[in-house]
Amino acid sequence: MHEFRSVFLDDQAGELVILDQTRLPNDVVYLRLSGTEDVWEAIRNLRVRGAPAIGIAAAYGAYLAVRHGSPESPEAAAALFRQAKRYLETSRPTAVNLFWALNRMEQRLASRYDSVAQLLCALKTEADAIRNEDARMCHAIGEHALSLLRRGWGLLTHCNAGALATSELGTALAPIYLGTQRGYQFKVFVDETRPLLQGARLTAWELSEAGVDVTLICDNMAATVMQRGLVQAVLVGCDRVAANGDTANKIGTLGLAILAKHYGIPFYVLGPTSTIDLNCPSGASIVIEERPGEEITTKWYCSRMAPQDIKTYNPAFDVTDASLITAIITEKGIAYPPFAASLKALPQ
Amino acid sequence: MHEFRSVFLDDQAGELVILDQTRLPNDVVYLRLSGTEDVWEAIRNLRVRGAPAIGIAAAYGAYLAVRHGSPESPEAAAALFRQAKRYLETSRPTAVNLFWALNRMEQRLASRYDSVAQLLCALKTEADAIRNEDARMCHAIGEHALSLLRRGWGLLTHCNAGALATSELGTALAPIYLGTQRGYQFKVFVDETRPLLQGARLTAWELSEAGVDVTLICDNMAATVMQRGLVQAVLVGCDRVAANGDTANKIGTLGLAILAKHYGIPFYVLGPTSTIDLNCPSGASIVIEERPGEEITTKWYCSRMAPQDIKTYNPAFDVTDASLITAIITEKGIAYPPFAASLKALPQ
Repeated sequence: MHEFRSVFLDDQAGELVILDQTRLPNDVVYLRLSGTEDVWEAIRNLRVRGAPAIGIAAAYGAYLAVRHGSPESPEAAAALFRQAKRYLETSRPTAVNLFWALNRMEQRLASRYDSVAQLLCALKTEADAIRNEDARMCHAIGEHALSLLRRGWGLLTHCNAGALATSELGTALAPIYLGTQRGYQFKVFVDETRPLLQGARLTAWELSEAGVDVTLICDNMAATVMQRGLVQAVLVGCDRVAANGDTANKIGTLGLAILAKHYGIPFYVLGPTSTIDLNCPSGASIVIEERPGEEITTKWYCSRMAPQDIKTYNPAFDVTDASLITAIITEKGIAYPPFAASLKALPQ
Repeated sequence: MHEFRSVFLDDQAGELVILDQTRLPNDVVYLRLSGTEDVWEAIRNLRVRGAPAIGIAAAYGAYLAVRHGSPESPEAAAALFRQAKRYLETSRPTAVNLFWALNRMEQRLASRYDSVAQLLCALKTEADAIRNEDARMCHAIGEHALSLLRRGWGLLTHCNAGALATSELGTALAPIYLGTQRGYQFKVFVDETRPLLQGARLTAWELSEAGVDVTLICDNMAATVMQRGLVQAVLVGCDRVAANGDTANKIGTLGLAILAKHYGIPFYVLGPTSTIDLNCPSGASIVIEERPGEEITTKWYCSRMAPQDIKTYNPAFDVTDASLITAIITEKGIAYPPFAASLKALPQ
């Protein structure tokens, strides 16, 4: 297995330890954060990224804020917590999981505590629970998905839905890690994933670290890899799944799904049931974030790679039609078409 | 129309003028070349690129080599020509059009000349003919293709099959230029075309210069643009067309063709009949060049964007199955499926 951990608590030192993802793949740098400002900065500047990893970092960060504030009463501790919570929530205001994790932590304050030590213990227990539930969820997704894969298969993935984005294993990459432990000898093709290159920088790195056979390609090479018979399944994560199975995920996912359908290759969406939004009827209701054109024309480059003032279109996500998806794999089981029925039927 | 010319002769000054494509899109720099070494260097280092443009540059370069050598007899002039030809042929040994153009020029030496001036005139006439035939061919391709397009359409293109690669107009871009002159008001989406970014650096630049409504996207955004109904036709060039219509072109073309088929969008291949190889039965016989992984991981970037020693797969071209192609548009007419019959039936 891989040797790194994206985010964890060093409780003895009183530090949150984060693998700085902005330095990958060239430098493997762990940051030891004790101040709440440091945790805020790490979330804000994407040093820790991926919804689950952000939630875990924020939960431990709030716990440490109380602990290092050395409050003299449970009431003072609660006040410190609320202050830290409000502050950390401003680090990435669009990250739903950040609010979810901090709200879960806050619910612990509803109990009565006889001592600061007791309250601190409760906060740490909740943060550990958030982390451990995520790890169990990733494992469960990985096991369900692995049941659909065969030894020696070629797999294709896009963006980063891996261990770096979660407590461990990831979602789309979880079956690859579990299969690798069990000698499945997958050959994994990784799309570089323009414009932010999460595939090249993060996924290629974390799979290589785990000893997986990885080949990096440009996004526009996926069709050729499929044409040559090198891919037996496509595995992608998801940002939001509508009630009918339409799936929003990183830009480029839709194209891969169409290519997979053309070549008769199964296309699997992997994610926790928390990303399934039964109140969202279909992909038509999903608003797609458009990001600055500089990500295409300028970012990463030594010099500008497109004409000054060129018009760009830079949607961060796309919506894959449910008809292109072979199965949606969650921690609670596998949903097959028609998804309107199967997603609702997943165990609660 | 656009204000630039990729390659032309300034006969009065005795200079070959080249728009330095390695400096685009940030700087528009014309190089005035009089020495054969300078022409060699410009071809070698891709300052002039695209098969037709290379042939034109080499033809004028050989003419100038004789002229500036100031030979005292037609025999001495012929010797100078042959020396320049052998030298220029080493600039890009895989560029078939380079050899084709220089061989055409050499055939002029078979006639008898009474003076050096007469021989120089014959060489210049031949180089002009190579240039003008290319321009007529591009126009003819453009007219045939434009007959299939409608006012206000959204168009998608990939890589650079434009004016920069030819004498003028280009192949895949020719109908866009002709249509723009006639008020068609196309909206053109340009794939950036990883890894070498010809779409971002060259196509986006030349279409913008001509006042075309251009939007630059990453390759993996083409599916979304089609899904949103913004594209009514895809126009691509070709490097080689097999007798059955299978087409080798820049990597990424195959994927676009599959997406276009999925969305019911016509997919047009544009190129001169010289790229149709009736001796090549199908795409299975076309060997695809694989290029260094550094083009994916390192080139253009301020720092390495993928793990050290990561395995890559970097095919420069792909083969689009004939079944995905709506029509192949040449200077001699439009071929429709079944291509095995229609390509052979094009006027000779």
